[in-house]
Amino acid sequence: MKKKMNIAIVGLGNIGSYFFNYLKNNKNALFSKTNTTPNILYISAKSLNKKRKFKIPKKLWLKNFFLAAKIKEVDIIVELIGGAEGAAKKLVFEALKNKKHVITANKALVAKYGDQLAKIAEKNKVNFEFEAAVCGGIPIIRSIKEGLIANNIGKIYGILNGTSNYILSSMDKDNLEYKEALLKAQKLGYAETNPSSDLNGDDVASKLKILAALSFNSFINNKSILIEGIKNIDRTDIHNANQLGYKIKLVGIAESNNNKIIQRVHPSLIKEKSYIAKINGVLNAVIAESKPAGQTVLQGEGAGPGPTTSSLISDLCSVLRGNIKFPFVISDKKRKIYSFENINNKKFSVYLRIDVKDKHGILSDITKVMAKNKVSIKRLIQNPTANKKNASIIIITHQAKSSSLARVLYILKNKKYVLSSPKLIRIEDI
Amino acid sequence: MKKKMNIAIVGLGNIGSYFFNYLKNNKNALFSKTNTTPNILYISAKSLNKKRKFKIPKKLWLKNFFLAAKIKEVDIIVELIGGAEGAAKKLVFEALKNKKHVITANKALVAKYGDQLAKIAEKNKVNFEFEAAVCGGIPIIRSIKEGLIANNIGKIYGILNGTSNYILSSMDKDNLEYKEALLKAQKLGYAETNPSSDLNGDDVASKLKILAALSFNSFINNKSILIEGIKNIDRTDIHNANQLGYKIKLVGIAESNNNKIIQRVHPSLIKEKSYIAKINGVLNAVIAESKPAGQTVLQGEGAGPGPTTSSLISDLCSVLRGNIKFPFVISDKKRKIYSFENINNKKFSVYLRIDVKDKHGILSDITKVMAKNKVSIKRLIQNPTANKKNASIIIITHQAKSSSLARVLYILKNKKYVLSSPKLIRIEDI
Repeated sequence: MKKKMNIAIVGLGNIGSYFFNYLKNNKNALFSKTNTTPNILYISAKSLNKKRKFKIPKKLWLKNFFLAAKIKEVDIIVELIGGAEGAAKKLVFEALKNKKHVITANKALVAKYGDQLAKIAEKNKVNFEFEAAVCGGIPIIRSIKEGLIANNIGKIYGILNGTSNYILSSMDKDNLEYKEALLKAQKLGYAETNPSSDLNGDDVASKLKILAALSFNSFINNKSILIEGIKNIDRTDIHNANQLGYKIKLVGIAESNNNKIIQRVHPSLIKEKSYIAKINGVLNAVIAESKPAGQTVLQGEGAGPGPTTSSLISDLCSVLRGNIKFPFVISDKKRKIYSFENINNKKFSVYLRIDVKDKHGILSDITKVMAKNKVSIKRLIQNPTANKKNASIIIITHQAKSSSLARVLYILKNKKYVLSSPKLIRIEDI
Repeated sequence: MKKKMNIAIVGLGNIGSYFFNYLKNNKNALFSKTNTTPNILYISAKSLNKKRKFKIPKKLWLKNFFLAAKIKEVDIIVELIGGAEGAAKKLVFEALKNKKHVITANKALVAKYGDQLAKIAEKNKVNFEFEAAVCGGIPIIRSIKEGLIANNIGKIYGILNGTSNYILSSMDKDNLEYKEALLKAQKLGYAETNPSSDLNGDDVASKLKILAALSFNSFINNKSILIEGIKNIDRTDIHNANQLGYKIKLVGIAESNNNKIIQRVHPSLIKEKSYIAKINGVLNAVIAESKPAGQTVLQGEGAGPGPTTSSLISDLCSVLRGNIKFPFVISDKKRKIYSFENINNKKFSVYLRIDVKDKHGILSDITKVMAKNKVSIKRLIQNPTANKKNASIIIITHQAKSSSLARVLYILKNKKYVLSSPKLIRIEDI
């Protein structure tokens, strides 16, 4: 084992800056935990002149960061540029090809090119580590790859995005409309100026795809995944859910049934007494159901420079200690090719909200459409709207096939008495 | 790295039997995750003839299990005998001295001799792994040693014993007396025939001492630790707690303040809305408060052959992969010598229950005793007992020094109007 390893840090935004300063100040502590000194050889970023909270030591600055992948002395590259394409992609591919260990927080890159990158890392016997790419400070990847390595994981799910969870919690707790809650989140630094990937489900999808591949020993599947965000949830839905004993949460769920895997990201109604319903604010939580360990829950802070640095350092120590692992638990040659299914055949109990003109015979027509399509009603509430000319019909259905539910939605949408697109939110018993 | 490692499993009770069969059936799967074959060379136990659910293959049986520590071909010994002294101690010491890797589920042994054993393991560059010793299937040790390695942990606490948690939950939910709940737990296999170490706090204490040493990079401290069990909690206390908005839980808490560490195990009143209050039944939960990751929660099944095997296999894979670590995170030479304090100077808000003869002037006397000893009252409830001749006085105090509270308790105990020893249960804001 080398007594010193040379590190190049590329990307000096919030995360990169925090990581660099942490590492600089904790070199000795990490040596006494790993028996190897983490030596910062280079730092680099797209621009030297960007305003930063700390002074960049000139002797560490590497002008062209692509060189980090080529310079012989560099052992480890920490990629904190971000983005699935462009500079990050080029740097990470070249680094692994040149037998450098790579540590990254880049979930978009790992979700898109993780399989190819893992193959190169395995061939070259170097580490490709990405604990920081999923759920900030929660050691979920290490737990799946090491702590739960004995297990057959059948289902992995949770609240994987702090921004959207903060907005939903805030709409509920502070009685805010979606836009108000988003503004508040932005003010507090919990949402970015362009928060679209946090809100449309893409961020959760990237994390879920990585977790699914790790959990099921499969390759990453980018195609078969349902992705719905939280943009259509309004205050009325939150109120309705409360009235019915539920909370609305954006969840990511990957489950394996008879070797068929379903991946989905969508808002869900969850019983208010359940554990998941109580995860509020920017917290993240991941639950793995597995054999023989049973149910394991990990909860913690999902974002921010501190928690992310905690994960980056855990990856770094794994590399320093010489703990070479297959990036996705299992050798590339043994990763499984499962069929990933869409949700058409999956049955759900759902919340339907149909805003209608308050006229005679409408309820009878709606229930007829449902009966014809084999969607049966478990509970129904009709609320008049404020002006009393319209009404909101809330239906909780029994379990029904996704395709049948979609048909009901399509038919109702085209009825003249329906005011706006009917809403469907799945109910999850988790 | 060796392509095959030879394993001797010693101890074939519930855990050992499950572990042996799991390993036998998952040899290939583990090879494809670690690149090394886990080969069972020997199995052994105190007696060959004990009734077991499986047939022991004769060619694997090692008559004298102490030989496992001597036989050259053995690379890894999995010790599942149990107990801090005797055979387990002798076997583990000899194995590490002879440069065998050791994996154990033996919390009593690790809590008592962990420091000495770790020193030998470090000197001989072998692994000494004990994930299974703390909280069954929850990968808490691996998370502290690897996932959270970057962190400065200031406080670690939780529900670390499933048996006592099941009994307290059951007393509450099913309205049972302590003895009834214990009988039920024994019937369901959640409590052993001799459950004393689960109920008197010793089991939690062993786990807490291990977690504290790992979290604070200190040596294990067996002396300064407060240990109280749940035997004195009765149904009335549970009812009183509910009335006041609390649940009673047996918690283990280790915290570091200005480099002074306090370790304590005791029943606590915890706000019913808090996360910890909702951990019911045999579940375990551990919470670490650290920098920079923030608060991390791990929850899962704390006992049983399946979850314990999950942890043993995670240790095994770490060894198979050649991931040599310092057993207590940090090199023996760098482990810190903190002062471990008792709780005398620590302030607590507590629940006091004083069962008294219902006579004039008693309340005035009790409050006088408290005022004199600087314990002030936040809330007071006086309930008549069923026969109305006696009364139960419940007091919630403001924060007061432990020593003052102890003095109040001592004085009240000797008052003629006090029927039985007054009860003190600390209130924890966790």
